[in-house]
Amino acid sequence: MINLLIDKIKEQNSPIVVGLDPKVEFLPECVREKAFKDFGHSSKAIGEAFYEFNKGIIDHIYDVVPSVKPQIAMYEQYGIEGLIAYKKTVDYAKSKGLVVIGDIKRGDIASTAEAYAVGHLGQVTIEGNTERGFDSDFITINPYMGYDTIKPFLDVCKEENRGLFVLVKTSNPSSGDFQDLKVGDDFLYERVAMKVDEWGQEHMGQEYSYVGAVVGATYPEVGKRLRELMPKTYFLVPGYGAQGGKAEDMAHYFNKDGLGAIINSSRGIIAAHKNPKYEQFKNEGFAMASRQAVLDMKKELEEALR
Amino acid sequence: MINLLIDKIKEQNSPIVVGLDPKVEFLPECVREKAFKDFGHSSKAIGEAFYEFNKGIIDHIYDVVPSVKPQIAMYEQYGIEGLIAYKKTVDYAKSKGLVVIGDIKRGDIASTAEAYAVGHLGQVTIEGNTERGFDSDFITINPYMGYDTIKPFLDVCKEENRGLFVLVKTSNPSSGDFQDLKVGDDFLYERVAMKVDEWGQEHMGQEYSYVGAVVGATYPEVGKRLRELMPKTYFLVPGYGAQGGKAEDMAHYFNKDGLGAIINSSRGIIAAHKNPKYEQFKNEGFAMASRQAVLDMKKELEEALR
Repeated sequence: MINLLIDKIKEQNSPIVVGLDPKVEFLPECVREKAFKDFGHSSKAIGEAFYEFNKGIIDHIYDVVPSVKPQIAMYEQYGIEGLIAYKKTVDYAKSKGLVVIGDIKRGDIASTAEAYAVGHLGQVTIEGNTERGFDSDFITINPYMGYDTIKPFLDVCKEENRGLFVLVKTSNPSSGDFQDLKVGDDFLYERVAMKVDEWGQEHMGQEYSYVGAVVGATYPEVGKRLRELMPKTYFLVPGYGAQGGKAEDMAHYFNKDGLGAIINSSRGIIAAHKNPKYEQFKNEGFAMASRQAVLDMKKELEEALR
Repeated sequence: MINLLIDKIKEQNSPIVVGLDPKVEFLPECVREKAFKDFGHSSKAIGEAFYEFNKGIIDHIYDVVPSVKPQIAMYEQYGIEGLIAYKKTVDYAKSKGLVVIGDIKRGDIASTAEAYAVGHLGQVTIEGNTERGFDSDFITINPYMGYDTIKPFLDVCKEENRGLFVLVKTSNPSSGDFQDLKVGDDFLYERVAMKVDEWGQEHMGQEYSYVGAVVGATYPEVGKRLRELMPKTYFLVPGYGAQGGKAEDMAHYFNKDGLGAIINSSRGIIAAHKNPKYEQFKNEGFAMASRQAVLDMKKELEEALR
């Protein structure tokens, strides 16, 4: 799966992942009103609207980005109906050939981690019948509980040819509260990075490992240091655009081969139709606005990485 | 909600939380076969079986324990149908007066954390209509990403009079990989504990704070140290029984007032009917086995804490 992701990045020359993190205020009026008309002012309506919104965007971007990253919390917030929309979004994105990164940030002790791994990357067997819960290609996971909570995810990844992105240094302002604590001469995030590098050696693809790292766009100097510490690790880089990450800093996150990072943008792409810059695409044209925003981001990155 | 939890613990003299973490192999034959007959070999059958199993147990323990803790991963593994069973379990437990601790170990950047908080402790508003996704009283959360990822949970807790248990020192063997790293003279888990104590001061109940801590039963010396560092923090203590935590060590986790900790047992209670010790209650009597296992655990703890 990491090989496929890299092939698609090369083919499209597009190290971009689009965060499918819908909010009600991002919905164009046409999508919102249709859902309310069909299902009332209910979570079912929101779920339907989120899915229609995502579907429109996917249809207009699947040939210019390799990957999407739905943030499960935005769906989980609306309970079961929201999670149905999450599942449908994952399945639809895969049907269009996109690599799906489920942004779920799970983590728990062994048997529980195994359940999450099976639910999001694997399959359950019920008296010989198999079913897949949420069928993503990669998921994000939290390392705080240590190796035996990572191992079950690794095992399922090996079986299923899927991958992980482990939180190392996150993009938020308080990420330093614990991640930046000094452990001997290292920052905690460096210690986590060394472990991610080690875990990744257990499951290598062609050039990069199946165990990636989440490294926030908002700390480019840290990105540079982590690039050295984890040469074979793909970086998932959140925090570009709305959170403050700048194109000119993104070079730090890449290796000399031009690979090694995939930059996430969510609001900047999916809510582009609300941006005066893309006014010609507003309301029904929302998905065209997302496509244009992707093409603009691609250009920005190309220039910055040249 | 922390006040209610403490009142119930005092009233029942039972500092016990039952982990509702069903697995197919824990199901009594009668429950499993009925579900397969009604719904085939499908995740819907498993969801139904999990719910019927939990309901039976809840009916037989709600007057002898204050609280239950469903582990969402065991349900999420079976996708949407599993999560429907999780939701129904939470709702049913609340209808019987139990305090529900959703063991979800979520954590993410601000707006995303807010979505999790709303989905599990709060409510969404859809054009004036409100709905609750997964309506638990407490949830467990992961601190690795720092304060701004905790704050949205705190805000919803204040509004809704609900609470949190933050992972501090977990019960698993590799918990030390990061949690035991030395930061200056402290272990990382001590630094996290100091923060939990500080965050708790923002949201105090009568004697204890609404911000609890997860402290594993398997490291009693650590429990003792953390008890000193977080005097006003309620401890959720997993790892009792099957994972190795012993009754005689539990005194370390309590304050002089006899309060301050709630000990979780999952397998030991819910799979008691598979234990030769409770053979008289096997199959249809599964819930009576759970009740007896709770009463035995209560006695064990009483003796150990005397």
